[in-house]
Amino acid sequence: MITGKNYIGEQLEGSGEVTFRTFNPTSNTENETLFIEASASEIDQSVELAWRAFEQYRTFSGLRKAAFLNAIADEIMNLGDELIETYCLESGLPPGRAAGERGRTVFQLRSFADLVKEGSWVEASIDTALPDREPVPKPDLRKMLIPLGPVVVFGASNFPLAYSTAGGDTAAALAAGCPVVVKSHPMHAGTGELVASAIVKAARQTGMPNGVFSNLNSSGIEVGVQLVSHPKVKAVGFTGSIQGGRALLDLAARREEPIPVFAEMGSVNPVVLLPGALKERGEDLSRQYAGSVTLGTGQFCTNPGLLLGIKGEELDRFVQDLAGAMVEIEPSIMLHPNIVGAYERNKQKAMSQEGLSVVAELTRDVPANFARQAVTTVEGSTFLNNTALHQEVFGPFTMVVQCDNASQLEEVVSQLEGQLTGTVIAGQDELSGYAGLVEALQNRVGRIIYNGVPTGVEVCPSMVHGGPYPASTDSRFTAVGTYSIRRWARPFSYQDWPDEILPEELKNDNPLGIERKINNVNTREGI
Amino acid sequence: MITGKNYIGEQLEGSGEVTFRTFNPTSNTENETLFIEASASEIDQSVELAWRAFEQYRTFSGLRKAAFLNAIADEIMNLGDELIETYCLESGLPPGRAAGERGRTVFQLRSFADLVKEGSWVEASIDTALPDREPVPKPDLRKMLIPLGPVVVFGASNFPLAYSTAGGDTAAALAAGCPVVVKSHPMHAGTGELVASAIVKAARQTGMPNGVFSNLNSSGIEVGVQLVSHPKVKAVGFTGSIQGGRALLDLAARREEPIPVFAEMGSVNPVVLLPGALKERGEDLSRQYAGSVTLGTGQFCTNPGLLLGIKGEELDRFVQDLAGAMVEIEPSIMLHPNIVGAYERNKQKAMSQEGLSVVAELTRDVPANFARQAVTTVEGSTFLNNTALHQEVFGPFTMVVQCDNASQLEEVVSQLEGQLTGTVIAGQDELSGYAGLVEALQNRVGRIIYNGVPTGVEVCPSMVHGGPYPASTDSRFTAVGTYSIRRWARPFSYQDWPDEILPEELKNDNPLGIERKINNVNTREGI
Repeated sequence: MITGKNYIGEQLEGSGEVTFRTFNPTSNTENETLFIEASASEIDQSVELAWRAFEQYRTFSGLRKAAFLNAIADEIMNLGDELIETYCLESGLPPGRAAGERGRTVFQLRSFADLVKEGSWVEASIDTALPDREPVPKPDLRKMLIPLGPVVVFGASNFPLAYSTAGGDTAAALAAGCPVVVKSHPMHAGTGELVASAIVKAARQTGMPNGVFSNLNSSGIEVGVQLVSHPKVKAVGFTGSIQGGRALLDLAARREEPIPVFAEMGSVNPVVLLPGALKERGEDLSRQYAGSVTLGTGQFCTNPGLLLGIKGEELDRFVQDLAGAMVEIEPSIMLHPNIVGAYERNKQKAMSQEGLSVVAELTRDVPANFARQAVTTVEGSTFLNNTALHQEVFGPFTMVVQCDNASQLEEVVSQLEGQLTGTVIAGQDELSGYAGLVEALQNRVGRIIYNGVPTGVEVCPSMVHGGPYPASTDSRFTAVGTYSIRRWARPFSYQDWPDEILPEELKNDNPLGIERKINNVNTREGI
Repeated sequence: MITGKNYIGEQLEGSGEVTFRTFNPTSNTENETLFIEASASEIDQSVELAWRAFEQYRTFSGLRKAAFLNAIADEIMNLGDELIETYCLESGLPPGRAAGERGRTVFQLRSFADLVKEGSWVEASIDTALPDREPVPKPDLRKMLIPLGPVVVFGASNFPLAYSTAGGDTAAALAAGCPVVVKSHPMHAGTGELVASAIVKAARQTGMPNGVFSNLNSSGIEVGVQLVSHPKVKAVGFTGSIQGGRALLDLAARREEPIPVFAEMGSVNPVVLLPGALKERGEDLSRQYAGSVTLGTGQFCTNPGLLLGIKGEELDRFVQDLAGAMVEIEPSIMLHPNIVGAYERNKQKAMSQEGLSVVAELTRDVPANFARQAVTTVEGSTFLNNTALHQEVFGPFTMVVQCDNASQLEEVVSQLEGQLTGTVIAGQDELSGYAGLVEALQNRVGRIIYNGVPTGVEVCPSMVHGGPYPASTDSRFTAVGTYSIRRWARPFSYQDWPDEILPEELKNDNPLGIERKINNVNTREGI
């Protein structure tokens, strides 16, 4: 059922000349299917189709878009075991993780279906006319969110389902009314094609225009560059490295018409361990954090790569406990030889920095593509003076920064680059003594966690998965949760527009029964 | 009272070496005050002060920020006649316009004061915990908008008050909790300094931290470049030319940490004149549009510079009527010799394009700095093939595009660059026959107007003053109306955060009584 071809709208095409295979890290061999990278004309065709599909799709009701999104979820489930098996063959991740991620993907699709079916997400706002106002009459103004146009989505390496072909970016864009062209991630092109087949099937079933979705294979950067440069592409979603995200941002900024790029990129997710907490439950914390650092072989964007504390007996003991707990954990496999390679290189680079001590490192032989976890530690002043120590090491690695005192700790936090998350671990009534620290942390992150771990990103309206650069390219948006639909929509005003041709969302009698702001008061009533 | 110096926070400073004077277009002479451009160290100081002020200002309640904004409005009114006189001396605009624009500025400040006093603008959202959820407990998540950090605002040439020192960008940024550094517009530096003095006075009165506002003089591009490049500046607001806005966008994109730039730039504001409307009331429309094109000497960003119709008797008659009405209008003064110069150059450039006919042009002698209005016309096919004809001619100039038929009209509309506004003038029941045209127009603009004129931009929640590039640099935001506060704020999540240290907006019992989304239901109730 996996053909290795591209979905150019509904059609499977493979006229290109570049081919590649995916890799099974468990068996350490290439998988069978030969994938054909999309050709220049196929790329152009996919965008032209998306552009034409946009003309219709942008006008579809929330009900119709919801039917499409729910059908995608159904068809993904209908892929059954083939999807789970392909996922595992292309990622080395276990079937349980595959099923869990599939559940998350389906949940996201259904959440967006619910959102657009209900309809209030368009933030309808009406200011009625005041014909007698002096010196000039006030016109009738009505505003709502409308879709931007075709969106290009770059699949993530570390979430073959939830942040790839039918992942959060795609679900949000389709919900907003934007056709999507996916640049499939080369590490799991088969998983991508299967999911794409589900989307195409769902599109046909629910009467969506051809071109509302395309899926393009690529092994290098050319497909992505051509897509982001295409004048009919109106926005870009990306999950991956800082280097990759920044390259796309730069490319989009150089276009004749610059377009928004939302890239969710690297983060070391600092965790502040306050002394009282370490005293109360240092050993528990060391076990909890050993688990969080090595969860999924450290391949989460919210992996806690930086632990910050104040020098003292408690912190010393925590470091030793953490080291002990970390090496006891069984090593596990990474997604791809390139990812293990980068992990080992970046780990060595970090460990070679002056002043960094290795507290624990698994050094024994491990099977091919397994990662060897490590814990390191460094003085606060050393960390402050060497930004190389601030870089993410993607994998089961963490660094404990030992600060001289609370004020140095606050300085370290305020000097950090932008982060997806920040965590504070505090003892009973301890947090109130660290108001400055908390504010400094808040200034650097998109989400702040109290007495927990940053791994685990809930899909709900109150989630922010983003943050100041380089956690994301635009901190005003989020990649996770229904609020992420805002990335792909723009406000639009109708002035004195006749009721009969206004969109349903803005008609006087509110036929959709959505929540609207009328003359600055929220209501579901009509006018 | 006008010193020619810069406000570096509360302090008047003038250590720089570059000086300049503003110009009175009416008397065609320079005004008296010598303005001192901000020096490199003053620029740096202003941003450092803003950065420190942000630490406090970001935590201030809506009530405190509202008091500050209202005090600014009061102090602007307290400037009395000196402000009106300075405004007129520096712009050539009449006192009535000055007073009107002052009213708009004060109204904007008070609108934002009301917005933050009420408090619901932060879009508080709460998803409560589900400790028993399987397979893992759901944490408590609470989200709200928080300010980005120091914002640099570039004053506009054509609105010395409403889109300059204490204009829409500044009011929105201060309301959001962001300190502001204004790069004052050199054409009205005196007006800017007066307004800055009002802001500084208001800041002192209401206990705002020093550095919450600074005002920097500049005659060239250096001050702006240094400001936008400063690592502690977190966003930029701009109103002006495409060239200027794009230069800032490019500069911000090249920073180590890219920052958002909202630039509201040029627009020709297409107006579609449908045949039925021209038949019903062509003569009235010609008078109405002659007035709109020449209003304020055509110096509005919503000036209708492009009129689109379908060839025929009615359009011929309209063009003749418009030509007649335009030349009967008394010519009027522009803001500055440079602006008149650019107008005459751009007008000549447009008129020299092949296939363009001049239908009417005021050619008689006019006083210094007065503009000579013009009406031109061109065939649809000529317009489609020459993008030079799509450029804005800032001033009392318009071009009538005569299309062969409805389908060419739709093509012309769909080929337009992004626009702030689009207007459709239709006869009784005529609009329903042009659904494709209306959709094409909607795709190119931020606001669509029915049977009106684009000039006149209402300040209210349902206004969108922005649009696809190059109308603005990011169509997902607006420059006018309270919704414009979104440009300067980002969503932020608290996970499992203790109630007692949550911000008021997110505490269980909702002490501010704001509208919140709790488990996806809007309510003002507590938890």
